[in-house]
Amino acid sequence: MYPDDGFRELGRQECLRLMTQVPVGRIVFTRRALPAVLPVNFCLDADGAVLLRTASASELVRAIDGAVVAFEADHVDAVRQAGWSVVVTGPATVVTDPAEHERLTRVGPVSWVPAQREVFVRVEPELVTGRELVGGRTLYGVNLAAADG
Amino acid sequence: MYPDDGFRELGRQECLRLMTQVPVGRIVFTRRALPAVLPVNFCLDADGAVLLRTASASELVRAIDGAVVAFEADHVDAVRQAGWSVVVTGPATVVTDPAEHERLTRVGPVSWVPAQREVFVRVEPELVTGRELVGGRTLYGVNLAAADG
Repeated sequence: MYPDDGFRELGRQECLRLMTQVPVGRIVFTRRALPAVLPVNFCLDADGAVLLRTASASELVRAIDGAVVAFEADHVDAVRQAGWSVVVTGPATVVTDPAEHERLTRVGPVSWVPAQREVFVRVEPELVTGRELVGGRTLYGVNLAAADG
Repeated sequence: MYPDDGFRELGRQECLRLMTQVPVGRIVFTRRALPAVLPVNFCLDADGAVLLRTASASELVRAIDGAVVAFEADHVDAVRQAGWSVVVTGPATVVTDPAEHERLTRVGPVSWVPAQREVFVRVEPELVTGRELVGGRTLYGVNLAAADG
């Protein structure tokens, strides 16, 4: 996506594998005509869809049900100036099938902020992209980026 | 913003203070009519504006210059099931003033992916919101959220 900037592009399977390493990602959507972003607990379904668990009465659910959203997860290593980032983009829908809802209460994401009435939201993995930054440029502890100014 | 979900809302100054603790945030924008998100190095200007440093020829710059964007930074503590998240929303503009550009090469953000020709982008802090999750519900190591199902 950004070929000249020092990152290594990641394939779909590698992206999905990396996502399983972190418990929280960020849902990116539109709210009141403005870009909006919120960290949420998630897990991946077998087909790579992103599964979110959230309070049914939340503004988040109203804003994203039926909309195309992006879901981002990453790992930042400040010491090594390295990391990776994955983005899943696709339509989001609330899970309404009772049997599927019951299945997800057992195997789906755990929320760190449980609510009385919860819903699961599924983000279809229509686009899965990712990239990795291997590590900053240093020599004998000197940050060459800063030296170049 | 989401009063019934167990989070503590943060004031503007607390939000800006927390942001200084992390070297990377995520710029949220629209690209080819889809929601887009990308981790980037940043720092805050004295007035709370978010300063990004990126390659001048990048698609990112073309997508955000003159647009309203959101910029998110957070800290996730998976062990304590706690964390915070801050979002700065406002118009983004490329810094074109030569004196200001020179000032930012000295005091602005360092990029982990330096490029030959770089620009600084400024996101005005028109909206600054944040929230903190103090910690998951546990008793004697049992995750009560999971027990409640």
